[in-house]
Amino acid sequence: MKNRSDITVQLVNVNALDEHVVQAARVSTQGSDSITSTGSPAGLINFLMRDRHGSPFEHTSFTFLVEAPVFVAREHMRHRAGWSYNEESGRYKELEGVFYIPSLSRPLLQRGKPGAYEFVSGSDTHFSRMVADLFYAYGASYDAYKDMLKAGIAREIARCALPVGLFTSYYATCNARSLMHFLSLRTRSADATYPSFPQREIELVAEQMEKTFQAHMPSTHAAFVEHGRVAP
Amino acid sequence: MKNRSDITVQLVNVNALDEHVVQAARVSTQGSDSITSTGSPAGLINFLMRDRHGSPFEHTSFTFLVEAPVFVAREHMRHRAGWSYNEESGRYKELEGVFYIPSLSRPLLQRGKPGAYEFVSGSDTHFSRMVADLFYAYGASYDAYKDMLKAGIAREIARCALPVGLFTSYYATCNARSLMHFLSLRTRSADATYPSFPQREIELVAEQMEKTFQAHMPSTHAAFVEHGRVAP
Amino acid sequence: MKNRSDITVQLVNVNALDEHVVQAARVSTQGSDSITSTGSPAGLINFLMRDRHGSPFEHTSFTFLVEAPVFVAREHMRHRAGWSYNEESGRYKELEGVFYIPSLSRPLLQRGKPGAYEFVSGSDTHFSRMVADLFYAYGASYDAYKDMLKAGIAREIARCALPVGLFTSYYATCNARSLMHFLSLRTRSADATYPSFPQREIELVAEQMEKTFQAHMPSTHAAFVEHGRVAP
Amino acid sequence: MKNRSDITVQLVNVNALDEHVVQAARVSTQGSDSITSTGSPAGLINFLMRDRHGSPFEHTSFTFLVEAPVFVAREHMRHRAGWSYNEESGRYKELEGVFYIPSLSRPLLQRGKPGAYEFVSGSDTHFSRMVADLFYAYGASYDAYKDMLKAGIAREIARCALPVGLFTSYYATCNARSLMHFLSLRTRSADATYPSFPQREIELVAEQMEKTFQAHMPSTHAAFVEHGRVAP
Repeated sequence: MKNRSDITVQLVNVNALDEHVVQAARVSTQGSDSITSTGSPAGLINFLMRDRHGSPFEHTSFTFLVEAPVFVAREHMRHRAGWSYNEESGRYKELEGVFYIPSLSRPLLQRGKPGAYEFVSGSDTHFSRMVADLFYAYGASYDAYKDMLKAGIAREIARCALPVGLFTSYYATCNARSLMHFLSLRTRSADATYPSFPQREIELVAEQMEKTFQAHMPSTHAAFVEHGRVAP
Repeated sequence: MKNRSDITVQLVNVNALDEHVVQAARVSTQGSDSITSTGSPAGLINFLMRDRHGSPFEHTSFTFLVEAPVFVAREHMRHRAGWSYNEESGRYKELEGVFYIPSLSRPLLQRGKPGAYEFVSGSDTHFSRMVADLFYAYGASYDAYKDMLKAGIAREIARCALPVGLFTSYYATCNARSLMHFLSLRTRSADATYPSFPQREIELVAEQMEKTFQAHMPSTHAAFVEHGRVAP
Repeated sequence: MKNRSDITVQLVNVNALDEHVVQAARVSTQGSDSITSTGSPAGLINFLMRDRHGSPFEHTSFTFLVEAPVFVAREHMRHRAGWSYNEESGRYKELEGVFYIPSLSRPLLQRGKPGAYEFVSGSDTHFSRMVADLFYAYGASYDAYKDMLKAGIAREIARCALPVGLFTSYYATCNARSLMHFLSLRTRSADATYPSFPQREIELVAEQMEKTFQAHMPSTHAAFVEHGRVAP
Repeated sequence: MKNRSDITVQLVNVNALDEHVVQAARVSTQGSDSITSTGSPAGLINFLMRDRHGSPFEHTSFTFLVEAPVFVAREHMRHRAGWSYNEESGRYKELEGVFYIPSLSRPLLQRGKPGAYEFVSGSDTHFSRMVADLFYAYGASYDAYKDMLKAGIAREIARCALPVGLFTSYYATCNARSLMHFLSLRTRSADATYPSFPQREIELVAEQMEKTFQAHMPSTHAAFVEHGRVAP
C-alpha cells in the first residue's frame, strides 16, 4: 500500500497549433475579403472565440495520461462530446494499492450552500483525523481485496471493496474545443463569465491540461481567457 | 448500513414505439414504390436492421432510474453517444450506506483468459469469505466516512473512503439505437454474432432494460435478435 | 413545379415537461436540504440554467417534421450533439419540384461585414429580378432533372442538377438542451448575451421550434430567456 | 464556369499510428499477464478489432481537405460521432462556378430495388444526354446566381439557384474509429460482412481516405479488413 497526494497529467501525444484553427476557418472564406481571409492569425482566432464559432477549434488533438483517484475519473468521464477515454481495468488486472490522501494545503472544510460551496482550511486536528480515517478505511479495504483474491474470488467482485480514493490511470483524448469546455467547468477563475465550483482534485487535472494547452496554442488560450473562459 | 444484492431498473418515462421508426424511415421514401413505402411495419423494420440503417431508430426516448453499485455506473457512463445521465452526488449530499453483496447465485470464481473469462460457482466457503471480507471493508469505510463528516470534513473529501460497491442511483436516457448498442455489449447471448463478456452486474441492468425495450418496441426488438444482436 | 415561401415545422412527437428536468436534477440531491431538493420547480430550473448545469435538461425529447429548402437542412444538420435526423432521399425516390422563393417581406440586400451582416429591404426591382432569376434557374434545373430521368439516368446522378433552393423534408429529434443550443445560434434576439447572425430561413425554423418549446416547457424556456439565451 | 469529374481528398494533418492504439489499450492492463500486455502490436490490434473494443482506436487524428460536390458533403456530414467539419460558406463569399460532371467510366443507369441498386454503364447517347442536361442546368443556375449578385441581392439568397452538383470544399477531422465506421458504410467490398450501397461519388472520398489510413496505420487497417470491415 502506498499513499499519494499528487495528481498528475502527462502529455502523451499532441497535434494542436493555433495555425490549425486558422487553416480550418479559412476554408469557409478563402478568396473573399472577409476578416477570416485577411486578418492576422491571432485576430482571426479572437474573432472566432468572440462570436462563438466553435468548429474551427476541433481540428486539433491532445492525448493525456492522467493519474488520479477514481472519483476524479468519474467526474472527468461525464464529459462526452469530443472526449475519448481508456482506463485501467479492475476486471483484467489486479489493482495496485495506491490511495489518495489530500495534501496539507487542501482546504478540508466546506461552507455555504450546495452548488456554491466555499472551502476553508481546517485545523491540524481536522487534518490528522482525516488522515487517520482514510488510513483506516483504505487499509481495511485493501486487506479485504487481497484476501478475496487470495481465496480465488474473481477480481471484478473483489474490487467492490476498493474505495473511490484509489488511484487509477487513464488516457484522455480531446480537441481544443472540448478541452475549453472542460476547462470552463472544471477550473475556478475570477476572469470567468460563468462561475464554476469544481472539486479541487479535478481542478488539479484541469490546471495541468490548461498549461499544456497554453503552451501549444497560445493565441487560442489567450482568446479563451480574454472572452471570459467560455468555450466557443 | 444496509446491504443489497438486487440491482434495479425502473422505467421513468418513455416515448418509443415501432411506429416511430416506421414514420421516420418513410420520410426518406414517401411517394415512391420502395420497400420502406409499401412494406408492413415489421418488414420495414427488419429491412432497416438488416441493412444497418440506424438513424430511423433514434427518434425514440427511454428514461430509466437505475439503482446499482458505483462500479456499474462507471461502466454504464462509458456509453457516450445517445446517452444522457444524472447521478446522485457525493458532493451535495451525505450518501446513504447501502452496499452491494453478490447473491448466492452469482458465480464467484473466474477462469480463462482476460477478455473471455468464464465464471463458475464457488463453494460455500468462498461465499462466506467474500461476505466477511466485504462486510469488513464496507463497515470500516462507512465508519471512516461518518467519522469524517462528524468532524466537519467536507463531504467531497470524506467520500474518498467509500467503496465502488456502494449503491448509487442515476437517471439514464437513451434512444432505441443507443440502447441496442448498449445491449449488444452488455449482455451475453448465444444468438449474438459478436460475443460479449460483460460483468454480470451490468448485465442485470441490461436485461431489465431489454425487457422494457421488448415490451414497447416488439418488432424492433425481434429484428435486433433476428440479426444477431448487432446494433444498426 | 411549385413555389413556396413558407418554411414549416410540425411537432410529430414530444415527451418533454419542466417536471422531467426537476426529477432528473433531484436524483443528485434527494434527501438533502439543498436548493434542488427543496425549491419550487421554477426556482430549481432557474438555478440550473444560471449555473449551467446542463445534463438535467437532456431527459426530454422533441421530434419535428421540417419542410425547408436544402440549404436550411444543410445548416441544421451541422448540429451533431443531441440531434437525430432522417431526410427525404434523392437516391431512393424522384424528388418533387417544389422550390423556395423568398417572400416579399424577406430583406434581400446585405450590408456590413461578414459575420455581422445587416439585411435590408430591396426595391420592387430587386424583388422582381430575384424572382425572375430564381424562376429561370429552377425551371432549367428541373427540366434537366426530368429529362435525365426520362432518359433512364439514375436518380442519384440526375439530382446533380437540382438547386439548394429545392424543398426537402426531414425528421429532427432533439432534447431540451440540444434545442436550446440550436436556438442560441439560430435566432437573433436583443436579449441574447452572445449575438448570433443566422440566415433568416433557418431562423424561421428556430422560431417555430421555440414556440413549441415554450408551450411544453414554460419554466425552462423562461429561464433560458432570463439567462441571456445561453444554453446550459 | 468550370467542370470537374475528379473528387479529391488531401491529407492536411495527421497524428495516427498503430502504436497509439497499442499504448491506449495497454493502459487497461499494464502490469498484468493478459494478451494486451504481452502480445505483439499487430496481435493486440487484431484482438481488439475482433472483440470490438473500439475505444483504443480513438486516440488518433486525421484531418482531410475534401473537394467534392455539395451532395457528397451532405452525405458526409451525416456522420456525427467523432467527426468535425468546416466548410466553404455561401453566405460569406461568392462561390466559384465549378460543377461536377460524372466521368465516362461512371455507370449511369440504375437497376434493382431501392436500398440495393446495381449500377450499369449507359450508352454514348445516355452520356451525352446527361452532359447536355447538366450543362444546361448548371449554366442557367450560375447565370441566375451571378445576375442576382450583380443586382445586389445578398449572397445567401442568390445561392438558392445553385445546384448540389456545385463543388464545395471542407475540412473533415476524424479518429481511426470514426473513420472505420465511415469506411464500412461508404465503400462497397466483397470482403464486407455487411454489404453497403454507397453512392459512387462518396465512395471516391472513402477510397482515398482508406489509402491514407492504410499507409499510416497498416496493422489497424489489416485487422479491419480481416474482420469483415466492421468498425469496432
